[in-house]
Amino acid sequence: MDVVVIGGGACGLKAACRAKRRNEDLNVTVVDSSPYPSLGRCGLPYYVGGIVHSVEDLRKTLAGVVRDEEYFKTVKGIDVLSNTKATEIDRKRRTVRIVRDGSEDELNYDYLVIATGSRPVNLNVPNSDAEGVLTLHNPEDAEKILEMWDEGVLEKAVIVGGGLIGMEMVEALSNLDVKVTVVEIMDHILPMLLDREMSMLVESYLREKGVEIMTNSTVSEIVTKNGRVCGVKVNGKEVECDLVLVAIGVKPNVDLALECGLEVGKFGIKVDERLKTSDERIFAGGDCVENVCLITGKPIYTPMGSVANRHGRVIGDNLTGGDSIFPGVLGTTIFKIFDLNVSRTGLTEKRARELGYDVVTCLVSGPDRAHYYPHQKPIRIKLIADKSGRILGAQIVGFGVVDKRIDVIASAIQMKANVKDLANFDLAYAPPYSSAMDTLTHSANTIRNKIEGLLETVSCFDLKEKIERGEVVVLDVRSEEEVKKFKRIENSIHIPQNELRERYDEIPKDKEIVIVCQIGARSYEAYRFLKSKGFNCKILEGGMAFWFW
Amino acid sequence: MDVVVIGGGACGLKAACRAKRRNEDLNVTVVDSSPYPSLGRCGLPYYVGGIVHSVEDLRKTLAGVVRDEEYFKTVKGIDVLSNTKATEIDRKRRTVRIVRDGSEDELNYDYLVIATGSRPVNLNVPNSDAEGVLTLHNPEDAEKILEMWDEGVLEKAVIVGGGLIGMEMVEALSNLDVKVTVVEIMDHILPMLLDREMSMLVESYLREKGVEIMTNSTVSEIVTKNGRVCGVKVNGKEVECDLVLVAIGVKPNVDLALECGLEVGKFGIKVDERLKTSDERIFAGGDCVENVCLITGKPIYTPMGSVANRHGRVIGDNLTGGDSIFPGVLGTTIFKIFDLNVSRTGLTEKRARELGYDVVTCLVSGPDRAHYYPHQKPIRIKLIADKSGRILGAQIVGFGVVDKRIDVIASAIQMKANVKDLANFDLAYAPPYSSAMDTLTHSANTIRNKIEGLLETVSCFDLKEKIERGEVVVLDVRSEEEVKKFKRIENSIHIPQNELRERYDEIPKDKEIVIVCQIGARSYEAYRFLKSKGFNCKILEGGMAFWFW
Repeated sequence: MDVVVIGGGACGLKAACRAKRRNEDLNVTVVDSSPYPSLGRCGLPYYVGGIVHSVEDLRKTLAGVVRDEEYFKTVKGIDVLSNTKATEIDRKRRTVRIVRDGSEDELNYDYLVIATGSRPVNLNVPNSDAEGVLTLHNPEDAEKILEMWDEGVLEKAVIVGGGLIGMEMVEALSNLDVKVTVVEIMDHILPMLLDREMSMLVESYLREKGVEIMTNSTVSEIVTKNGRVCGVKVNGKEVECDLVLVAIGVKPNVDLALECGLEVGKFGIKVDERLKTSDERIFAGGDCVENVCLITGKPIYTPMGSVANRHGRVIGDNLTGGDSIFPGVLGTTIFKIFDLNVSRTGLTEKRARELGYDVVTCLVSGPDRAHYYPHQKPIRIKLIADKSGRILGAQIVGFGVVDKRIDVIASAIQMKANVKDLANFDLAYAPPYSSAMDTLTHSANTIRNKIEGLLETVSCFDLKEKIERGEVVVLDVRSEEEVKKFKRIENSIHIPQNELRERYDEIPKDKEIVIVCQIGARSYEAYRFLKSKGFNCKILEGGMAFWFW
Repeated sequence: MDVVVIGGGACGLKAACRAKRRNEDLNVTVVDSSPYPSLGRCGLPYYVGGIVHSVEDLRKTLAGVVRDEEYFKTVKGIDVLSNTKATEIDRKRRTVRIVRDGSEDELNYDYLVIATGSRPVNLNVPNSDAEGVLTLHNPEDAEKILEMWDEGVLEKAVIVGGGLIGMEMVEALSNLDVKVTVVEIMDHILPMLLDREMSMLVESYLREKGVEIMTNSTVSEIVTKNGRVCGVKVNGKEVECDLVLVAIGVKPNVDLALECGLEVGKFGIKVDERLKTSDERIFAGGDCVENVCLITGKPIYTPMGSVANRHGRVIGDNLTGGDSIFPGVLGTTIFKIFDLNVSRTGLTEKRARELGYDVVTCLVSGPDRAHYYPHQKPIRIKLIADKSGRILGAQIVGFGVVDKRIDVIASAIQMKANVKDLANFDLAYAPPYSSAMDTLTHSANTIRNKIEGLLETVSCFDLKEKIERGEVVVLDVRSEEEVKKFKRIENSIHIPQNELRERYDEIPKDKEIVIVCQIGARSYEAYRFLKSKGFNCKILEGGMAFWFW
């Protein structure tokens, strides 16, 4: 039986190898248009940033062997044709037309796998084809950036797009001491990944690190000098730069699929849960297909190496008489920028509200291990659920360990957990790893408190407006030392938490009170007490940790 | 309404504070026999090891305030009576008799919480009351160890018991440059937590670090000189030491509960899922109660600070008209010993087999982040499931990040996940955090392969026996460089993986072949190929990474 795979990336090669392992009698041919099949593209930003030292390293096995054509032939028993372009699929005759070294050929298939990946979206403005305007998709892109750096002509870069790849490139370029400006069209960076208050944590950190962030901003033109980039026009003004890195997203390579009449959706080739396309003989996976969101059941585009790998295994099984299901995705994402870890899964609050969910959220800050253990670092969690307690999403940002917590929440969502379940997960506890009541557990319990009506909050955005309109009195319950050390909201009343039970009659009873502390825990305590005394009060969501001056 | 709480540890104080927050009108009194309520006892080993600098730090809030009687009174509005012993519960009159400063008193309750914790099991051998024989349960124990060290009379220590506390104390004492010997009665350390092959990884690392490990060993006598410890008799021979640290477990403090006629099980006070005892008016939680294993539904003893905290919240809710459930535990445990991270959850293979489960396991090694990313470190996973794929337990050991993976598996077990679910969890992927197909995902897929019959393995223990009996031929498929660098099993055939498709006729067809490589991945590849050629083969479970010479 002949299996042809178009695309030698994560999904295609995984599908090919898995199928061959399950059935040694298969003839498997993988066609790849690039000269470097099996390249871990996710590693390219780290190559630019000098963290990974060679592109070859991104093609190696664990044991250090480069996964080239020879490797696939001798070890895996499959034929990989690099520098080979698939130009046409004939579904009736079950053939794929290919071009290799300028000459055409045809491959027969019993089963075909389309794993053609994605390509970067280009910037559609004047001069966007000038020298010095790049995307980062191939090793050649990385080499061009490094050449410019070697030649000493790379001092300033503009990254167009404040999404995931943009952020990874901020770190990479900053590692090269390049001064970076990020231009983002929306009102905050990472708009598809984070809600505004979480993205502002990233933004303010990047500013501290010397990165310029321009939100609500559009690049209207590339400015050139002798055919080379020398700047970009943003909101009408010129920003000087030597390099424009376009990181406004990728789109699925669906041309072959469209041309042969396969069903293609808004976000890529349509596949069922076995990753079969509208043709019984054709499977598809990786960046070129449309995924299904596990929460909403709706189509979603998630071009991720991890998803592509899992797709590959499912296809390899189903190609060979197996029955494997790919259930869907949550859009779980993580990245590191300098020392900050940023992660998210599921729906943002914004998206959940758009979809009509009855949303409850919380912002919780805490240490990533026992607070008395050295080197503990803070993390901030936004947890999003509906009124029944079903978990819809989460965002975690911090210098502390966030990947562990986001993975637990992703696992919980995947298993349709309620915040009650999450709060009682028997997670591993010892002081070097977490708190006895971990910040994650605390976030689940905070949602439970809100659902039970034990707690009402006001967001930092709403509180600012309320203060401006003179609608509220702010009560600060932090200690004397803290209010001396940190700024206090103007005109706030200050009663330290430990004096509140004695001094609460100093607080006006006829006004709305908003209680603030550093991270919200003491405000909650104060809230419960004042509520019992008949005050009309709320607390600042997340505490002063989420306040922006 | 009067609420009395006996025990000012994690559970008791959490229950008290939670109840008071829910209902400000409660009169809450917490009785604690120690002078230091709210002590994070889990931190004591780190105090001994010099990582935490003061016992006071173990009583502080996140904001740095010591949680003493004054704190609980002014901030929480509850009365904490330290140095106060509860001596009797009168269930008919609903009173608790207490002794404080030598005088007796009585407290009335509408609801009572028993959170009396646990105490260390003592060593029952001659001279076990000698000076220098200690447990580590209270700050006084820690101070005694540190005093000995300050006086320069602590050079050698014997730790009796190779369990969790024993291991934490190995690190603490080694930090003080004390030469440590661990005496363990079973055939491997951590017998309740890890299966033998996983515990051997810890054992061999500890030996490298200069720790002496004596398994299958019993202390029969403490040897003294002028009333002080100078050694222990182990298996009839004397081992010199200045300190004997007894770490053979803790037992629940159930005396008060027994005396007032509450139901007490094998592992502690019996409670229902609302943590109510056999008396409607009495709740109990923390180290003094029996928990339920979420997998087996059977009673289990899990004296953990994290569990006690969760218990406290459930009790606080149910005391005040709420309806909170504590579902049970998995016995998830983690500890750090020098640079090694050791974790586990659910059932061990041994325990699962004793309970009659039809068990499938795998041993998988891999990096904790993308293998091309710097500072990636290895982790080793043992995953345990039944033949339907239901996950029963896991053990993860390594210099890399293990807590994340054990937490995901614990979450999966708690939600009754199958390995198929786990394999498709949409976990956070980026090169600094994990592999595109993470070692965890790989472990779930390996179990799936075994269930599907794609793979048969032999444990290192069985292979050793088979080799001794001359029953097998070992085929080593590692590279030339690897077999030069690492030792090879005697008389094994060596055919590097990339030559196997050419040279497989060199392998005898009439014998059982066991294929080995470094971590099992290449053996699996070779297995699938040789199987298709009609060979009778298996692979070494986990590869040479689990081989002990």
